[in-house]
Amino acid sequence: MFIRNAWYVAATTAECNTERPLSRTLLGDKVVLFRTGDGRPAALADRCAHRLAPLSLGDIEADGLRCRYHGMKFDATGRCVEIPGQADIPPVMRVRDYPVVERHGFIWIWPGDAARADAELIVDCHWNNAPGWPTASGYIHYKANYQLVADNLLDFSHLTFVHRTTLANSAFPNARPDVVPFERGIRLYRQILDCEPSPLHAMAGGFTGKVDFWNRQVWWLPSVFENWAGSAEAGGEGPPHERPGALHFRHFSLLTPETEKSTHYFWIHPCEFPHGDAGLIDPVGDGIRTAFAEDRWVIEAQQEVMDASPGVQPKGAGSDVALNRVRHMIAQRVRQEAQAAAVAATEGA
Amino acid sequence: MFIRNAWYVAATTAECNTERPLSRTLLGDKVVLFRTGDGRPAALADRCAHRLAPLSLGDIEADGLRCRYHGMKFDATGRCVEIPGQADIPPVMRVRDYPVVERHGFIWIWPGDAARADAELIVDCHWNNAPGWPTASGYIHYKANYQLVADNLLDFSHLTFVHRTTLANSAFPNARPDVVPFERGIRLYRQILDCEPSPLHAMAGGFTGKVDFWNRQVWWLPSVFENWAGSAEAGGEGPPHERPGALHFRHFSLLTPETEKSTHYFWIHPCEFPHGDAGLIDPVGDGIRTAFAEDRWVIEAQQEVMDASPGVQPKGAGSDVALNRVRHMIAQRVRQEAQAAAVAATEGA
Amino acid sequence: MFIRNAWYVAATTAECNTERPLSRTLLGDKVVLFRTGDGRPAALADRCAHRLAPLSLGDIEADGLRCRYHGMKFDATGRCVEIPGQADIPPVMRVRDYPVVERHGFIWIWPGDAARADAELIVDCHWNNAPGWPTASGYIHYKANYQLVADNLLDFSHLTFVHRTTLANSAFPNARPDVVPFERGIRLYRQILDCEPSPLHAMAGGFTGKVDFWNRQVWWLPSVFENWAGSAEAGGEGPPHERPGALHFRHFSLLTPETEKSTHYFWIHPCEFPHGDAGLIDPVGDGIRTAFAEDRWVIEAQQEVMDASPGVQPKGAGSDVALNRVRHMIAQRVRQEAQAAAVAATEGA
Repeated sequence: MFIRNAWYVAATTAECNTERPLSRTLLGDKVVLFRTGDGRPAALADRCAHRLAPLSLGDIEADGLRCRYHGMKFDATGRCVEIPGQADIPPVMRVRDYPVVERHGFIWIWPGDAARADAELIVDCHWNNAPGWPTASGYIHYKANYQLVADNLLDFSHLTFVHRTTLANSAFPNARPDVVPFERGIRLYRQILDCEPSPLHAMAGGFTGKVDFWNRQVWWLPSVFENWAGSAEAGGEGPPHERPGALHFRHFSLLTPETEKSTHYFWIHPCEFPHGDAGLIDPVGDGIRTAFAEDRWVIEAQQEVMDASPGVQPKGAGSDVALNRVRHMIAQRVRQEAQAAAVAATEGA
Repeated sequence: MFIRNAWYVAATTAECNTERPLSRTLLGDKVVLFRTGDGRPAALADRCAHRLAPLSLGDIEADGLRCRYHGMKFDATGRCVEIPGQADIPPVMRVRDYPVVERHGFIWIWPGDAARADAELIVDCHWNNAPGWPTASGYIHYKANYQLVADNLLDFSHLTFVHRTTLANSAFPNARPDVVPFERGIRLYRQILDCEPSPLHAMAGGFTGKVDFWNRQVWWLPSVFENWAGSAEAGGEGPPHERPGALHFRHFSLLTPETEKSTHYFWIHPCEFPHGDAGLIDPVGDGIRTAFAEDRWVIEAQQEVMDASPGVQPKGAGSDVALNRVRHMIAQRVRQEAQAAAVAATEGA
Repeated sequence: MFIRNAWYVAATTAECNTERPLSRTLLGDKVVLFRTGDGRPAALADRCAHRLAPLSLGDIEADGLRCRYHGMKFDATGRCVEIPGQADIPPVMRVRDYPVVERHGFIWIWPGDAARADAELIVDCHWNNAPGWPTASGYIHYKANYQLVADNLLDFSHLTFVHRTTLANSAFPNARPDVVPFERGIRLYRQILDCEPSPLHAMAGGFTGKVDFWNRQVWWLPSVFENWAGSAEAGGEGPPHERPGALHFRHFSLLTPETEKSTHYFWIHPCEFPHGDAGLIDPVGDGIRTAFAEDRWVIEAQQEVMDASPGVQPKGAGSDVALNRVRHMIAQRVRQEAQAAAVAATEGA
């Protein structure tokens, strides 16, 4: 069960183009993404209304998408605008369309009630390739439920054990963050003073001694993780994230459920390097990719174990505070949507 | 659900031989095909009566098929004729046999009530490699229900969109055939005068200008498609298919359900070339193979969408007349067989 | 359904080590095998109590196994002995442990009630690499239920048909063994006098003429097959297995169900060669491997047919006596365990 009244990343701007339609399963729905002649993105159910061939095999035209099978054409709203050999177009010959918005380098899709799709709710990730913010980015396909990936991002005590060569910092298990819920999710604050930098921070910040490290994170429901992380030389004046010469990472992990057992994972990693060397973005990106491959290895194995262990429940540890909070919020929203749908069905009857 | 009281192609004559048994799933049944010493084809359930090892691993002998596991031998009627180390052969030790007939280059099998297996019902495809009829032929395995393949053959409006480089003729969507039901299926008649020839007709017929094109098709229930297609120079006297110098294709598509989600597709394409160049059969065969690969690409994708869309129904278009008629006839026959089986079960009780 | 109160081979001694944990599914349970610093083998459920990551991804330490995800450590009894960043360890934070015993080159596991795990019940296979007993050995993964493999070992009438180049002896189908049940399984005795040796016996024993052949076999419930087989020159004094100059094979096939449809098959083949040439063990081992590959080919195909033939029952032949007896004994034990579990559940309630 997913929260459907929310924005999810469907694709990068480059993936959605006027050349070839993109077929992608999002929250269990097969969706085709394309751009019409005016460059505007569109998302339709990837299933011709006529005989259910996938529209993504078809061809993009200036004013819509033509099915490869019998040549029917649908516009960006899903309306059939041409049936070859037939003058009359019955109104039922249409496919579902989804609200989409292009922002910050992504195509965002709203899989729920279109009337509630408010673009103001899209998470601000304007640092993506912004001036002064060299940005690494990537996509990972996960064979695991998106909440297992969320759990991982919400409990940094794993960094010490999973990411030995990249993000590890032996202080993490003992550095529990402050967790502050707000209407749209939770905020996490973590500060570790006078610690060894992780291999990645040492390299990117040019630190040779100890550092003061911070995380200021936001989990945006349902599944965007914002992580402002950084390090400054240990012992400076004021909060480390306000000190000159600090290293800043403005990371976003953007999760979109594909199915109940698989996830699209988009990420961007904009950096502000204290010594201004933009070329550092390449080894930083490589480090992130290595770390995320380590996470995937553990999390996909975890999903396999859970599939083979019906009825077995995790047992709580102190480090689960944030992830339990988010799981609770997601379950609540899913319930609310189910109740609203039941009410709507009753009123419709 | 399949029509079981009907002839289906089980194999080509060459596939069924005295060297190695052929294992093939037909209408959901695992069947082993072989020839006994006298050259006659035989079809048995591919499952030893003793401990259910597949008989197709065994060895063909002059008077039957010997199981590779414990050496039991079964004759062409499925009767056990030898149990090594045991003098007495219990009558229950037998496997199901299927009526088979060898005709027109194929082994035809009757998966239903053997008492009703009338060889007169086998569709006449004597053009297969007949003198004066150079013939291309082939086999395709489809990961799709056979009725999706039937739909495709029964609606040529797709030619324009799926087969751009081979069979396409831009007039197809507007050239609806006359559809004439008869007891064993439907007949379709289509004629397009003064049109551009398809790439394949232009090449095979040596046409440089416009042509008068025809289809005279028969859908034989449950799943043989006969397509007498051809072209003659545009503007000649009389019906184009009776004119001298015309190109004639005597195509047959012979579908046999493998499972509910897969199909054996045999095809033959006997040709009469107006300029007598039998060597043209090779590029014609290549063109058919290309076109059928295009169909499979679309139809297997359609099956995948349908599997992922339970409850979603196709929406009708004017071009669906013939396929809807055949789907209706098949459903009716399946119902009749189910009713007859229920009556027989009651009478037997 | 499996007999759970029994010893099964989980791994060879070499597979279970202090370097890397071994993950293996046994009787449907995911198990992790490792050795603690003192060299003792341990087996735990391969599933961290905390968030169900597989422990087999983790690292072995002197006193236990540390999970790779959040660093929790479990000792050889499944008790959590460390939670990083947390002083208090709740008693529920534990994983299931299994009784294990190392003996005769194998790690034996008891997947049932630990209170009943009596090491005296482990089958004696001390010939494994014992002095004077050159031993071939191996492992095969079967995609078939272990009882289909058991059937195969319990009916040697298949040797003539499946193992033409290795173990075949045309007399087998007519040489029914004597079958003698005892409390822990059945014993089988077979003797064939004055017969052609199988290719493997001829090679290993250096026989140029006919031989007197014997099998003295034990099926130990649930799934260890002991086969003392051999040949002596035909016509000697006394029982062939007591004659000097005889060839002796002290074979063991040790089956462990992986799932209902797959099996771990360990085997050892200790030999006493009449002419003392220990180097013969290599071609003997190759012959066994070839023969077992032939069995697997037939048995996996048999499993596929059975999967595709729900409700179809094997029909009995005279050669099924031993395997029917063992199937009956296994079914009875499974029933007894189910009844005992039901009683225990009632008493616990």
